[in-house]
Amino acid sequence: MTPTIGVFDSGFGGLTVLRALIHRLPQARFAFLGDTARLPYGSKSRRTIARYAAESAQFLVREQGAEFLVIACNTASALALDAIQDAVPVPVLGVIEPGATAARAASRTGDVLVIATDATVQSHAYAAACRTQGLRALEKACPLLVPLVEEGWIDHPVTAEVIRIYLDELNAEAAAQGLDPDVLVLGCTHYPLLRPLMARAVPAGMKVIDSAEAAAEAALRQFGARIAPPAGATSAPEPILRCFATDSVDKFERLGSRFLGRPTGKVELVDLGG
Amino acid sequence: MTPTIGVFDSGFGGLTVLRALIHRLPQARFAFLGDTARLPYGSKSRRTIARYAAESAQFLVREQGAEFLVIACNTASALALDAIQDAVPVPVLGVIEPGATAARAASRTGDVLVIATDATVQSHAYAAACRTQGLRALEKACPLLVPLVEEGWIDHPVTAEVIRIYLDELNAEAAAQGLDPDVLVLGCTHYPLLRPLMARAVPAGMKVIDSAEAAAEAALRQFGARIAPPAGATSAPEPILRCFATDSVDKFERLGSRFLGRPTGKVELVDLGG
Repeated sequence: MTPTIGVFDSGFGGLTVLRALIHRLPQARFAFLGDTARLPYGSKSRRTIARYAAESAQFLVREQGAEFLVIACNTASALALDAIQDAVPVPVLGVIEPGATAARAASRTGDVLVIATDATVQSHAYAAACRTQGLRALEKACPLLVPLVEEGWIDHPVTAEVIRIYLDELNAEAAAQGLDPDVLVLGCTHYPLLRPLMARAVPAGMKVIDSAEAAAEAALRQFGARIAPPAGATSAPEPILRCFATDSVDKFERLGSRFLGRPTGKVELVDLGG
Repeated sequence: MTPTIGVFDSGFGGLTVLRALIHRLPQARFAFLGDTARLPYGSKSRRTIARYAAESAQFLVREQGAEFLVIACNTASALALDAIQDAVPVPVLGVIEPGATAARAASRTGDVLVIATDATVQSHAYAAACRTQGLRALEKACPLLVPLVEEGWIDHPVTAEVIRIYLDELNAEAAAQGLDPDVLVLGCTHYPLLRPLMARAVPAGMKVIDSAEAAAEAALRQFGARIAPPAGATSAPEPILRCFATDSVDKFERLGSRFLGRPTGKVELVDLGG
């Protein structure tokens, strides 16, 4: 039986991580859960987030048989990775440490910029993970980018202008602090959809690291050997995928395909309790 | 003892309604509750919203002695006004019916435009209230406007451009339906902060109705006589105001003054349960 990778997010932005995983591990089965009834996690306490995330992880492991978990949610990765690891008996990977590792590999100056949601920036989880890698990181919250992506303005002049304003502010702050950044980390699962605009907006020579891609690379290294089919087996032509949400299935189906790069299929509603 | 008006919102956008109330009833006492721990209401079921709103209303009446309630939240006004009225023994006023009444008074053509959040538009509560007034209403969700206001870009070229795009789409849709609108209703408690930009963006001759102002006018008509101080009494020079929130007190204090037009003072944290 092909092993199942469970992928968890508070919403459906984590479908960008799932997309990157499917690209690298097309022979795996995937179960994605968006805890849409209880989002946004970002405004809730660490204890509450840990409980929600643990319940979601248990659903993926116990009900869907996931043998590996990828936490495709920056807030849960920042605040609840330990709680999830304690709650389930399978390997668990977050998005933040892989993003910092990829930044380390890409940076020559050792100075990196991180853009993310307000909640992720306030947690300073990227700065801490970068420090562990010997990097200096300057973080900036960009609260307009998620709504712009969800509005579908992913290649829109307004979005390009908003990105220009945010990056100008961030580069000015970096200069004021005497930093010489050469890497920009996209620290939110919605931002991969803005990657083309980001690549055009950064200063020449600055590399853009997508933490969704970085997490999928890390998953391949960590789980890949155990997921590769036995020699001689034919891999499935299409990924085997089930998507679950705790609420707002319509919005998930409507917007999700944009993040996943293919139709989500029918999204199944699950009740994890209050 | 000066009567207390309780004002309730799922967040702090309803402080624009409180501001309009204070302007008209400076001699009242006010207790404002933002149920910030459980927002956004817009993505939740009617039953859940009704329970949250009823609990919030009971806090204002039982704990704070409110003798009147203003529901300064479009979602709760649309989906839970009956439930709130059943839950407390005091008069309760929402924001939607006053907005429709003001539109009726302002419109000569009988056709009106309404802009609001996605959740309010999906409820079609404004369209129904307008129909009761003999008006034809065309509603449009403008999901970028709340994030732009919360980012503080209330007089910003990007916001002006987003408003222009939304209103162009809405006016084109109205023309396609053979409507001749002469009123724009701002059906979200965040939008009063954008009123100057809105006034510049609408076609010549189109009036802008602010549902926060309309609700305050309605409150003055409904409660005003009972709140006016006895003859000879001196009214308080400053409004007597207490603000409560169920979470995220920092964000409330940081952004709230922009909505209220004065400092919120210390915001008190209350626990209404899960």
